[in-house]
Amino acid sequence: MERFEVNKESIAHLKSLLNEGNRDVLSHYLAELHVADIAEIMDDLSVEEAEKIMSHLNDEDSSAVLMELDEDQREKLVESLSPQEIADKFVNNLESDDAVDLLQELDEEVQNKVVSAIEDVEHASDIIDLLNYEEGTAGALMGKEMVVVEDSWDIARSIREMRKQAGEIEQVYTIYVVDGNNILKGRLPLKKLLTANVHSRMSDILIEDIEGVHTDTSQEEVVQIMDKYDLVALPVLDALKRLVGRITIDDVVDVIREEADKDYQMASGISEDIEHSDSIWQLMRARLPWLIIGVGGSMLSAMVIGGYETSLATIPALAFFIPMITATGGNVGVQSSAIIVQGLANNTLKNNDLTGKLWKELQQGLLNGLIISGLAMLFSMLVFSDIKLGYTISSALLLVVLFASVTGTLIPLSLEKLDIDPALATGPFITTMNDITGLFIYFFVGQYIYASMM
Amino acid sequence: MERFEVNKESIAHLKSLLNEGNRDVLSHYLAELHVADIAEIMDDLSVEEAEKIMSHLNDEDSSAVLMELDEDQREKLVESLSPQEIADKFVNNLESDDAVDLLQELDEEVQNKVVSAIEDVEHASDIIDLLNYEEGTAGALMGKEMVVVEDSWDIARSIREMRKQAGEIEQVYTIYVVDGNNILKGRLPLKKLLTANVHSRMSDILIEDIEGVHTDTSQEEVVQIMDKYDLVALPVLDALKRLVGRITIDDVVDVIREEADKDYQMASGISEDIEHSDSIWQLMRARLPWLIIGVGGSMLSAMVIGGYETSLATIPALAFFIPMITATGGNVGVQSSAIIVQGLANNTLKNNDLTGKLWKELQQGLLNGLIISGLAMLFSMLVFSDIKLGYTISSALLLVVLFASVTGTLIPLSLEKLDIDPALATGPFITTMNDITGLFIYFFVGQYIYASMM
Repeated sequence: MERFEVNKESIAHLKSLLNEGNRDVLSHYLAELHVADIAEIMDDLSVEEAEKIMSHLNDEDSSAVLMELDEDQREKLVESLSPQEIADKFVNNLESDDAVDLLQELDEEVQNKVVSAIEDVEHASDIIDLLNYEEGTAGALMGKEMVVVEDSWDIARSIREMRKQAGEIEQVYTIYVVDGNNILKGRLPLKKLLTANVHSRMSDILIEDIEGVHTDTSQEEVVQIMDKYDLVALPVLDALKRLVGRITIDDVVDVIREEADKDYQMASGISEDIEHSDSIWQLMRARLPWLIIGVGGSMLSAMVIGGYETSLATIPALAFFIPMITATGGNVGVQSSAIIVQGLANNTLKNNDLTGKLWKELQQGLLNGLIISGLAMLFSMLVFSDIKLGYTISSALLLVVLFASVTGTLIPLSLEKLDIDPALATGPFITTMNDITGLFIYFFVGQYIYASMM
Repeated sequence: MERFEVNKESIAHLKSLLNEGNRDVLSHYLAELHVADIAEIMDDLSVEEAEKIMSHLNDEDSSAVLMELDEDQREKLVESLSPQEIADKFVNNLESDDAVDLLQELDEEVQNKVVSAIEDVEHASDIIDLLNYEEGTAGALMGKEMVVVEDSWDIARSIREMRKQAGEIEQVYTIYVVDGNNILKGRLPLKKLLTANVHSRMSDILIEDIEGVHTDTSQEEVVQIMDKYDLVALPVLDALKRLVGRITIDDVVDVIREEADKDYQMASGISEDIEHSDSIWQLMRARLPWLIIGVGGSMLSAMVIGGYETSLATIPALAFFIPMITATGGNVGVQSSAIIVQGLANNTLKNNDLTGKLWKELQQGLLNGLIISGLAMLFSMLVFSDIKLGYTISSALLLVVLFASVTGTLIPLSLEKLDIDPALATGPFITTMNDITGLFIYFFVGQYIYASMM
């Protein structure tokens, strides 16, 4: 049970086994590996090599491997197959939610052909059902495979029925109890199954703590519920409260990761989900938009400074602190908005007390602003021995910090109210806005102080 | 089974029930709520109100509620209790991993007193064992409660033993199979338990796919393994491969969230884990350090610009594009480092091909750099009609983008090599560094171009 590690050596070893072409040795080697490890190796191989490996796996393993691959590699492998082959080799062997994930990566035309090529009618109808739910909802996230017993059954009958059902299911998370109309009544914990008398009825021993979500509940809410109540599986109900599916924790972990990644990328000025291994064009498409917005903002900044060209010609020292104004405005704005965005994402921003939040940010800004203004004053006196410059940078800095604190708090909250992703407000957006406003404040204050202290 | 929602109304309702002082009504109301909901309400109440609610709950529920509370509220509730009370009311009723989480929030002296006050010797020894593991390791994350059967037992005996064990366990994730020396052999899936003959031996029906981690495996690796292999529970082994505990998916979800939050906060210039509801002093401690570093960096920027004071006095227009240089350097640097940090966090940066990565970043930088340089050139010609300024800003911008791409890639990779959190390189750090270097490049190029084109 030593852990297998995917690295340069294991990839090279597999490649040499492929080149030697000894089917037995290769099959033996693959049989020792977990499907997730095989997939990780295959991500680094050519399509031809990957296809060879697939041909050594049984249909169940090759389907599991397929779903663990990077999307690009999976697309390439599926591309060359006919709809009939896709249905037979993969869709038939996948649980309904995975099958739907695969189908959704295909063109609609191919998708329809694959669906009609599925042999098992029940499996096909489960898949058609799941394909109808809108992306980002509980319905789109759920799978159909569950162990379900009726509340009127006793333990003996339940075990008989569960035996039949369990054979087709990869992993049993929870045993659900429904009534004769398939309406969810509760769950049967393994503990009860083991300890109850064989003649006990389900209705007497079921646990009611379980709550279902609707098929149209958003995936964000699903994540919050499973996280809050520490659930490994969550039942999904239709409008009549009938049990139609279940969402398992592994899918929710994927959603949590995706959402955290998305917020992180937004804060970093990246507009699409990318990885370093993507093509230069994909990377450019994700990075260039924010760079252009940043440059556009800086053009406005240039015009603001340009408006003070005559002041600059007489007092060039005013230029020295331009970076301090823009950097501080950006840093404070990003901090304030990040706290709000994270609070919204983790559902820890509880009440709707906007004035309270702003007041707190202002106090916070005043405190931090006074400290860094003091430092800037000291620095400009010591290094440039210019009292007017000192007054200008320290008072402008304080105003910039206060402004950035307020907008950094207000903008993400307003976006959330408007149902726009508040994470949009972080990163380059807030930095660019604060650059422009900060420079206005700085030159305005500078002009006033130099004029009044002549 | 309607979902309960914690909001202003439900909090106000509970408060009014508390004030009315009718114990029966209050108890009845609380009995309908999930412990996670009770905890969420209690986070918004005073300590006195929270204590009153706790007095209405049985020991098992109040322990569960306690562990769901925010850390501050939990601390306040525990503060007033004696070690004996903490042991009796809470520690006795918590599973070992939760008990350890609670104990670790206490002063060492109190912690020791609580441990010696635990009545159940086995529970106490489990807890002492867990307290020894270093934070951030599998040992510190695991719990001791598991259902374990021996490989020599048949189904009938296994079920008898499982009944005894299951009574004490909140939720059964996996049934582990060990040999006579407690060495992990595999697991018994519910499917097999239901379908196998009652006389089958565990050694014949166990599944070997399960791999354990060591007690000193890092929690990052635990997360990666459970995520990659889609596990809901992971067994933990000691140096002799004996089964000593298990880690469950809910703890791993918490770790994933914490790590994503940490990376996000680092990228936003926040140095400690904070929420908007924390005190002004906590917020200041988390925010001020990076603000001061940013201001310190801007002081160096001021000195760089100060070195070119005579150039500025003759060509004040050079000041116009200072924000464009610093903003672009910052944006590109943050993008590049974010892609690396996220790749490292998600384990998608597979190979060690450093030159390849840098080459790709350089191509990417050249492409984006040329586009935004062109835009800047066009802008400065149209708005300021100054060809020398146009040459200066566009060529400096291209150099800045290339520099920021390379350092944004190199620095997080180097930190990772040195075992320092690469996320440190993102946000304010990279922005500040690129400000200073960018200004050097800009003024150097400007001086050269204005001198040679006189």
